[in-house]
Amino acid sequence: MAEIHSDLPHPAKDELRLESVLFALSDPARLDIVRQLADGPLEMARCHLMDPGIPKSTKSHLMKVLREAGVIRNLPQGRGRILSIRREDLDERFPGLLDAVLTAT
Amino acid sequence: MAEIHSDLPHPAKDELRLESVLFALSDPARLDIVRQLADGPLEMARCHLMDPGIPKSTKSHLMKVLREAGVIRNLPQGRGRILSIRREDLDERFPGLLDAVLTAT
Repeated sequence: MAEIHSDLPHPAKDELRLESVLFALSDPARLDIVRQLADGPLEMARCHLMDPGIPKSTKSHLMKVLREAGVIRNLPQGRGRILSIRREDLDERFPGLLDAVLTAT
Repeated sequence: MAEIHSDLPHPAKDELRLESVLFALSDPARLDIVRQLADGPLEMARCHLMDPGIPKSTKSHLMKVLREAGVIRNLPQGRGRILSIRREDLDERFPGLLDAVLTAT
């Protein structure tokens, strides 16, 4: 898979750390974002938080933790941004982890 | 499986929360403890921390986070304590998660 150039830094696949991925997924609001992306990429503006009262700065921070851990990509697209799970990278580095998390209830 | 009575509180299987389990596993020192228990129960005194300079109070706290999340059991045995992974409970509640975490490198 070709390297994707972005305005925001994303760790390379080989730099992903299990602990960081688990931490990023350990928060209900962050986990909810990942679940929204399970069926495919989503515009950031369409990604909603569980609690609509959460300020925009908090939403940005949640996205940042997920991106810096390597769980999601956050790329510019047109005038907005598009979010997606780094499924191939995660499945290769931590086989079965993402599926286990997404199927858990 | 019969309920196990202990001096320390352990959440029931149905009370386990994915986020709490992921959080408990998201710390290198806690993850190392879980890996030591992967082959079977271990006396707490034989469970060593990665960093031998970590104070005993920190070791106790690491065990507490793992126990309260439902990842490990911490039961009295003789004059010591015995630690074990709650594998059956975790596998039933979050199929594949523990294996994915333990096989990840």
